[in-house]
Amino acid sequence: MNNFIFQNPVKLIFGKGMIAQLSKQIPKDKKIMITFGGGSVKKNGVYAQVTEALKGYKTVEFWGIEPNPSIETLRKAIALGKEEKVDFLLAVGGGSVVDGTKLIAAGLLYEGDAWDIVKAGQSGETVPLAAILTLPATGSEMNRAAVISNHATKEKYGFTANYPVFSILDPETTFTLPENQVAYGIIDTFIHVMEQYMTTPGQSRVMDRWAEGILQTLIEIAPKIKANPRNYDLMADFMMSATMGLNGFVAMGVAQDWATHSIGHELTALHGLSHGHTLAIVFPGTLDVLRDSKGDKILQYGERIWGITNGSRDERIDATIAKTDEFFRSVGVTTRLSEEGIGMETINEIERRFNERGVAFGENEDVTGAVTKQILLKRL
Amino acid sequence: MNNFIFQNPVKLIFGKGMIAQLSKQIPKDKKIMITFGGGSVKKNGVYAQVTEALKGYKTVEFWGIEPNPSIETLRKAIALGKEEKVDFLLAVGGGSVVDGTKLIAAGLLYEGDAWDIVKAGQSGETVPLAAILTLPATGSEMNRAAVISNHATKEKYGFTANYPVFSILDPETTFTLPENQVAYGIIDTFIHVMEQYMTTPGQSRVMDRWAEGILQTLIEIAPKIKANPRNYDLMADFMMSATMGLNGFVAMGVAQDWATHSIGHELTALHGLSHGHTLAIVFPGTLDVLRDSKGDKILQYGERIWGITNGSRDERIDATIAKTDEFFRSVGVTTRLSEEGIGMETINEIERRFNERGVAFGENEDVTGAVTKQILLKRL
Repeated sequence: MNNFIFQNPVKLIFGKGMIAQLSKQIPKDKKIMITFGGGSVKKNGVYAQVTEALKGYKTVEFWGIEPNPSIETLRKAIALGKEEKVDFLLAVGGGSVVDGTKLIAAGLLYEGDAWDIVKAGQSGETVPLAAILTLPATGSEMNRAAVISNHATKEKYGFTANYPVFSILDPETTFTLPENQVAYGIIDTFIHVMEQYMTTPGQSRVMDRWAEGILQTLIEIAPKIKANPRNYDLMADFMMSATMGLNGFVAMGVAQDWATHSIGHELTALHGLSHGHTLAIVFPGTLDVLRDSKGDKILQYGERIWGITNGSRDERIDATIAKTDEFFRSVGVTTRLSEEGIGMETINEIERRFNERGVAFGENEDVTGAVTKQILLKRL
Repeated sequence: MNNFIFQNPVKLIFGKGMIAQLSKQIPKDKKIMITFGGGSVKKNGVYAQVTEALKGYKTVEFWGIEPNPSIETLRKAIALGKEEKVDFLLAVGGGSVVDGTKLIAAGLLYEGDAWDIVKAGQSGETVPLAAILTLPATGSEMNRAAVISNHATKEKYGFTANYPVFSILDPETTFTLPENQVAYGIIDTFIHVMEQYMTTPGQSRVMDRWAEGILQTLIEIAPKIKANPRNYDLMADFMMSATMGLNGFVAMGVAQDWATHSIGHELTALHGLSHGHTLAIVFPGTLDVLRDSKGDKILQYGERIWGITNGSRDERIDATIAKTDEFFRSVGVTTRLSEEGIGMETINEIERRFNERGVAFGENEDVTGAVTKQILLKRL
């Protein structure tokens, strides 16, 4: 096991009716900017619950943080927040709203352009922020990561922000999610866990088991959620999986990868595909091309998660990749570039970008532009 | 899943050589009381590492916090701490030293007798404390629980204290532990997880998998540690299991039990048996007597952990209990009261005490004095 320092200060407030806790958690003298995505929270009752819980507070609302939140939108929110002198932020929505609000929290105390913060990879001091999560997927509600897009430059990068002070998760708020958002959320969670698990084997038995426990849960609940998206316990397990999958709890003392994410971000930046969708397309290719370095862990994953124990090493690896691809498709997403009309032009462009930036991703920093091309060629 | 609020602020500092981090974590102006158990830390190099790391700080040492720390000893530490005006506590040792130091932290800011705090079940404000853990077992390094004994009254109770600010865990500090302390630590960890897992099934898939993941890890590493107690990765997995087993991470949204612990505490109070040892004796009896209410979860545990799938319901439950008992014995402890010369007199006395206190333990608060007697009769 690698040495590590772990600390996660987020207060997780989980369950039915817990939005009412808001007034116990935010000091009365705060001026709150509440940030939203589109209008779905007005239809599903979340907006009404938030408004009721915050009676008596001074609040400003900012609407329109989009999926893959853009610096263009967030600049407007920062300008509004500075003008209104807000000193507390409450994100209400999915991971994109939370991510975007993390940048607002940093931008409010920064004099220059907030894109500088993203490019620097790390925020300085921030205004305190909290979240009410309505879409389980990114884990942003209990970590310090955020990913921001720049439409002007067609770039998409992550940076290290501050933790939310608290996050409220009520599974009932997910009952009205569109089916495709649930699908992307399940896949996003699955791959988050994989990015922390599909590395050198034998680093930590506990972390391996915990990662596998989330994967097993997702595989068990995915078809049940499809049949019954308003089942409280199923959606509670989904929310728990998403939050626990990316809050550091399965990452202690083990290596991480994130090559699939880096490649997926490019597909979003170039074609606007949903984040979870890009991961479903890329990940089987990552396993396929990196089968030498990741082979032992793929075999462990195949055996423990899919019960694959027969055949040669390569046959078992192939069967495990096929099972994974099949699972993504069963959730309801396409897993091939060609199914989205994406071809060689994009593959070459991503290779060019990675080469130009001189980057190499993955646990062993060996996923170069050329390796990325191989991975994407497997997914045509 | 039940509603819950989770927050664990402890900074976990894990790995080889991490004791040197001390000077980065404690403000330079603090006057530190360092608390110890016996002298083992002088033999295994831990004392030397701590002294080196704290050069330049004002420190006072308090030695002699015993296993099952007593109020009699802790009163002396509190008196010394008040006299020396210490404003930071550093516990160096196992769970008993950490537990005892949690009471010292509260006692330093309390005017009356510290046993009041234990009886109240909850501490008020405390002096900040941190820990260097040398014996994986209690989880005290990352939770707010502490258990204190009173020799005068032969009582032993838990209370809710404050979290350590940070805890340093270096697996190398465990290399010189006596074999029986390792055995008790493995069993203590196993039962901690069980007290949060062996309850109504179907509450949370993720929590179930995580609890099972720690159980699987312990079962895998126990024989290997016996053969090779100086293996870094094995002891790292053991330390991780003990800490993750009782820091709230497997307890989110699920019921807890703790009947076995309540009964075990009495065996320690009356006969001085090690805490982990009492749990190995009691737990199979708890499963046996509560087989109706816990049956479905015993079957899940039996199937997922021991692969038991054949036979009638009762046969599978019996086989699962037998496997559990066998595991405890394989670790190196006795699991029968008679093996420790304990008989009916003690069983009757524990029944009398529980009846007198009018208590009933367990998830369903149905483990009365009479049920406790049944449990212990199964363990003669």
